[in-house]
Amino acid sequence: MRFFDPTNTYAERNCIQNHKKDLLALGTRAFVITGRSSSKKNGSLDDVIAVLEEASVPYKVFNEIEENPSVETVVKAAEIGKEFKADFVIGIGGGSPLDASKAIALLIANPEESGDCFYVEKDLKALPIAAVPTTCGTGSEITPAAVLTRHDTQTKKSISYKLFPDLALVDGKYLLSASKNLLINTCVDALAHAVESRVNIQTNIYNQMFSNYALKLWGEIIPFLRSEDELTEELADKLMLTSTIAGMAIAQTGTSIPHALSYDVTYHNGVAHGKACGIFLAAYLRIYAKHKPEDVDVILSLLGFETLDDFAAFLKEILGIVTLTEKEVLFYVERMMENTSKLATCPFELTREDIEKIYRESIVVE
Amino acid sequence: MRFFDPTNTYAERNCIQNHKKDLLALGTRAFVITGRSSSKKNGSLDDVIAVLEEASVPYKVFNEIEENPSVETVVKAAEIGKEFKADFVIGIGGGSPLDASKAIALLIANPEESGDCFYVEKDLKALPIAAVPTTCGTGSEITPAAVLTRHDTQTKKSISYKLFPDLALVDGKYLLSASKNLLINTCVDALAHAVESRVNIQTNIYNQMFSNYALKLWGEIIPFLRSEDELTEELADKLMLTSTIAGMAIAQTGTSIPHALSYDVTYHNGVAHGKACGIFLAAYLRIYAKHKPEDVDVILSLLGFETLDDFAAFLKEILGIVTLTEKEVLFYVERMMENTSKLATCPFELTREDIEKIYRESIVVE
Ligand SMILES: [Zn+2]
Ligand SMILES: [Zn+2]
Repeated sequence: MRFFDPTNTYAERNCIQNHKKDLLALGTRAFVITGRSSSKKNGSLDDVIAVLEEASVPYKVFNEIEENPSVETVVKAAEIGKEFKADFVIGIGGGSPLDASKAIALLIANPEESGDCFYVEKDLKALPIAAVPTTCGTGSEITPAAVLTRHDTQTKKSISYKLFPDLALVDGKYLLSASKNLLINTCVDALAHAVESRVNIQTNIYNQMFSNYALKLWGEIIPFLRSEDELTEELADKLMLTSTIAGMAIAQTGTSIPHALSYDVTYHNGVAHGKACGIFLAAYLRIYAKHKPEDVDVILSLLGFETLDDFAAFLKEILGIVTLTEKEVLFYVERMMENTSKLATCPFELTREDIEKIYRESIVVE
Repeated sequence: MRFFDPTNTYAERNCIQNHKKDLLALGTRAFVITGRSSSKKNGSLDDVIAVLEEASVPYKVFNEIEENPSVETVVKAAEIGKEFKADFVIGIGGGSPLDASKAIALLIANPEESGDCFYVEKDLKALPIAAVPTTCGTGSEITPAAVLTRHDTQTKKSISYKLFPDLALVDGKYLLSASKNLLINTCVDALAHAVESRVNIQTNIYNQMFSNYALKLWGEIIPFLRSEDELTEELADKLMLTSTIAGMAIAQTGTSIPHALSYDVTYHNGVAHGKACGIFLAAYLRIYAKHKPEDVDVILSLLGFETLDDFAAFLKEILGIVTLTEKEVLFYVERMMENTSKLATCPFELTREDIEKIYRESIVVE
């Protein structure tokens, strides 16, 4: 069994300012990768720029990362970064900019490569990467994964390289301007990470320490998710911590079936990532419980649920429903059955009937 | 708060053979650092040599690391390593060879430096380091510390560089030939690590995950330590795992007062490291409990003790007693009061009376 989590992680208020020395140590020309607007609104982009300008470090901002970023966007950004002669990359935002920043750092460091390198096995290194998360789901700041949207295969997939950020600067205050809907979706993503790591074929005592702790913390934020309450500073820190720790768990194991199922629903139906994973969790655990009931009991007990029915009802309450056509269901089931590498993350054999059952329990067929 | 634990850690049976690719990736000329005999006896040295020979990697073995290795020994080894043109270092053994291998890797990588560099602040990098622990106490395979004996100041101190091994190969089978006495001493060292990390001023939720889990595992090995039983393979794995996880905890925080107190008793009175730390644990926690009883309650409950008296009696039962003269006690108390950096690891002020009280409760004055 293995433990590997090399990212230098700081989690605290005013993290970027407090640890600017570590950030500036990564290079001399910064390429800042973010989305259109949220990092401007929540202050994270200004905090990064303030540190770069204070130290007179030349930088360029690329703010065109879309949700579920495509290989094409990443390639476009890398061209700009190469022209700028960036020698380190700073990703700011949710999972989309953070994942994109890893792939961009890889392409800039290997100017002879194109986007074709992402899904083949080569021995390539990336530029140094710093990650500043501003949502509480992805955990990308401390995982090696970089999930991109592939229009060629019409799905999302993590690139073939393990790219741990060198530095993660985690500050809960960036959550304070997020909508409740975004908080719910990203929190559920973190929940899926903690659960899917725990029930993974790769599970071992290392990721279980992180998964278990994340699940316990997650149980404590349920009342907030159910309520109309505004987010407090203290709770923002807890949401962010839960996300980072759940990320440390999947950094060890990778994700599993609910994430694999989510990709079609996100790609074809535009369902947000966290919700797309969350809708499948209860039905997957129901099948899992037939094989390894003790693991499911631990998960429910850490979260504070009595039964899987309670868990399923809670997720439906906060996520709402997803509607698919009969044709979509059958098509997605087939695609899942072809995804042998993700099927292999389940410690027992999943049949076509199992997958179809998960779909029919998780979504509404129109 | 920070989490940083970059060592690539594998823990399993036949770990060296299984992960030889990672070992061989560290360099092309190996300098193997170990003690006189135990790594020969337990098979770890042969396992490393087999991998090196199989891959035709030139290597040199330095097997003169003594218990509590001195700066002088490390300097001597580094000269040999430089002459051999080693480009990576493999430490095999207990804390002594592992800590020494870090300091040796630093000196070889910086041939213009002498042993004088160890206790000053410079920006020096070391050669790549692999660590193979063969005792269940040190955790050195996944910590950045390298404690050396300084004859100039008549004590032990970690060098000023944070040298995480690049690779830790952890295999419980190397414990099977160890004496019960060695197992007890090194297990108690791991206990001290878990406790001192938990009650450290640097404690945060990251190291607490590791400390808490190590304490829970440690509670499960108490019956073995109390018994005349032989070590089984399964239990050997648990002892080794406990040690590595407790090491992950001190990797985040460093050690605290019992370790600081141990160094005089080891240097001047020759008491083994684990025992020298363990004798002070209960008395230190008694003072700690006056300030933060809840932390001490957590520790006792994870270990499975009702009271500090039970804990103290248990440690006395397995460790026996240490006898000092009145003059030694007074001298050591003064030295501890001068050790301001270690005193600062306690979250409240420790008075001279506190330190003297810890001594008088922990040892027998002859
Ligand atoms: Zn996710
Ligand atoms: Zn120790």
